[in-house]
Amino acid sequence: MTESPAPYGAACPACEGSWPAAADRIAELSEGTLYLHTDQFFPGWSVLVLRRHATELFDLARDERGRLVEDVTHAARALKEAFDARKVNYALFGNLVPHIHWHLIPRLAGDPAPREPVFAVRHDAIELRPDDRAERIARIRDRLRR
Amino acid sequence: MTESPAPYGAACPACEGSWPAAADRIAELSEGTLYLHTDQFFPGWSVLVLRRHATELFDLARDERGRLVEDVTHAARALKEAFDARKVNYALFGNLVPHIHWHLIPRLAGDPAPREPVFAVRHDAIELRPDDRAERIARIRDRLRR
Repeated sequence: MTESPAPYGAACPACEGSWPAAADRIAELSEGTLYLHTDQFFPGWSVLVLRRHATELFDLARDERGRLVEDVTHAARALKEAFDARKVNYALFGNLVPHIHWHLIPRLAGDPAPREPVFAVRHDAIELRPDDRAERIARIRDRLRR
Repeated sequence: MTESPAPYGAACPACEGSWPAAADRIAELSEGTLYLHTDQFFPGWSVLVLRRHATELFDLARDERGRLVEDVTHAARALKEAFDARKVNYALFGNLVPHIHWHLIPRLAGDPAPREPVFAVRHDAIELRPDDRAERIARIRDRLRR
């Protein structure tokens, strides 16, 4: 198990707590924290952020990696159920913020580009009003508890 | 553990063996088979395909999922080492072929868009000549064995 160097010199936004926004927090899981993605053009898009700093899957100990993937799986199932998704997409990039975080995107029946990764779909970001965001977060939380 | 229905009626290209191409096979790992992606615009882009048919991470038993993620991790480390990558990207979509497969993309120093997911980068696909493809496959195999 190795600690990866923090990106941007010492300042990692995930470690500093400046990203994701606290208001988007859905739940604390075993190894990570689940947040609603700011852009809700794809409804339910969430981000699971490892609680400690590491960059690659191979930087984690096997047990830790296993628990993280159980978090990913638990969150993915909750998103599928909460939004009656046809498919879930899972992506771990870290190109902008090289602190392990998974994009978990339920792909719904009305998806505008069901055959494409969301990253290939140009669109204007949709930021929800606070009450709509809270409703969406509550819906996911409810499914995580089942 | 549930078996997901095969996509496209009975015909799943991964189960039928029509995709990925046998010539692109790099190695058999514990739960999946690693292939070189046909498009090598991003050098080293590989695809790890689960040997049996399943669609979502939550369709797998925990032990099987754990072994699959160890395969992903082993392959990602080999790709990082083989190409001296700055970062590895990991993506499990299944939008076109809903049979679990991971895109593993080493992001190199000369990457044309290092801050973007590769899926957002429009480009003409680069298909290698057979001897160049074989050389690339051999380079990854060598790293997998270490």
